[in-house]
Amino acid sequence: MLKMYDLAGAEADRRFSPYCWRAKMALQHKGLEVETIPWRFTDKPAISASGQGRVPVLVDGERWVSDSWVIANYLEDNWPDKPSLFGGGAGRALSRFYSNWADAVLHPALIPLALLDILRHVDAKDRDYFRKSREERFGTTLEKFVGDRDAKLPAFRAALTPLRLTLMTQPFLGGDKPLYADYIVLGAFLWARAISEYALLAADDPVAAWRGRMLDLYEGYARKAKGYAV
Amino acid sequence: MLKMYDLAGAEADRRFSPYCWRAKMALQHKGLEVETIPWRFTDKPAISASGQGRVPVLVDGERWVSDSWVIANYLEDNWPDKPSLFGGGAGRALSRFYSNWADAVLHPALIPLALLDILRHVDAKDRDYFRKSREERFGTTLEKFVGDRDAKLPAFRAALTPLRLTLMTQPFLGGDKPLYADYIVLGAFLWARAISEYALLAADDPVAAWRGRMLDLYEGYARKAKGYAV
Repeated sequence: MLKMYDLAGAEADRRFSPYCWRAKMALQHKGLEVETIPWRFTDKPAISASGQGRVPVLVDGERWVSDSWVIANYLEDNWPDKPSLFGGGAGRALSRFYSNWADAVLHPALIPLALLDILRHVDAKDRDYFRKSREERFGTTLEKFVGDRDAKLPAFRAALTPLRLTLMTQPFLGGDKPLYADYIVLGAFLWARAISEYALLAADDPVAAWRGRMLDLYEGYARKAKGYAV
Repeated sequence: MLKMYDLAGAEADRRFSPYCWRAKMALQHKGLEVETIPWRFTDKPAISASGQGRVPVLVDGERWVSDSWVIANYLEDNWPDKPSLFGGGAGRALSRFYSNWADAVLHPALIPLALLDILRHVDAKDRDYFRKSREERFGTTLEKFVGDRDAKLPAFRAALTPLRLTLMTQPFLGGDKPLYADYIVLGAFLWARAISEYALLAADDPVAAWRGRMLDLYEGYARKAKGYAV
């Protein structure tokens, strides 16, 4: 059985890493069973065999595979007879831009809306690490960084424009069915859903309808996970 | 022989529409010969058979095909034995996001840097139309809209981050070879190149190296077109 180290909050079943969500949705897409192991930011020794200190880490027997993009490629290459995550070589190459867009545009637009909610949910042993590392990264206190969320919401929603326009013409980024590109983007929304009640999307946003379709996949796999109603 | 109406400036061989460039590069990719017909904004009657008033318009015998995305799909579906623009159904679906990103993010970031340069190059009969339509669209004079370009350049370059990160790990958006997604993005740079001497990219930007590779394709097809050295 595959195992995956998965970032958890104070409650072991509150899983909020967008990168772990990418990997878990990819595993669902492939129809592969996985045992997820709750992991906290400060549990570095548990994953030292992976040669680095971040999750997701997939453990396949003797193989330790880290980095969500590498994991997706590992699943695609080792289970070629299961449904494809990329739809071929072109689709694999074209998926990179989505990953970089999520990392460079989507996540940075979301973080100011969600950072304090993450702090509320991280495990007690992670709180000091989380506050210190993020305040160093952003050069200010978490409270100042988050500031007035409502004032930042329009910028977040505007950043979704390319996503919104695409989902107005097709049900998934991958077309009629979801592909790994969908899971890349979904990761951000599952991250937010796990820790925040804040309404990121207007009810009539095509992105919200897509998020609903994604939550329904695989018998509601993501919807069943601990989080807030969105 | 295929024909295509192609936006031209005061000089008939100065072709600056990003959407026409998408279509012309797609035609090159398919190895199809095309006669391009210089067209100006105010030449609406010439393309009335297409049922709309914008270029590119492809004429294939009795068929008039407009809209660059529709043209790309028309080429893909009617010349399936020529090199694929999408690399399959997944690639086709995944290309939509690139188109929407270019329209919603890349072009809007470029327009404030290039708009006055376009005005300098449009045909005399188009100048009033161009100024009036753009000043209505942007709600200010072209001169005010363009303002201090150097101050706007960092935002343009920052908008390229997902593109830059991708091109740091693979030579083309399509992977080892260019796909239609590459032409979508290239259109913006060929638009700028046709009408502006302004240096959009730092010399050491991976995006600049990619642009160079794109200009080299098909025996320097785009590089031979009238424009400024970039």
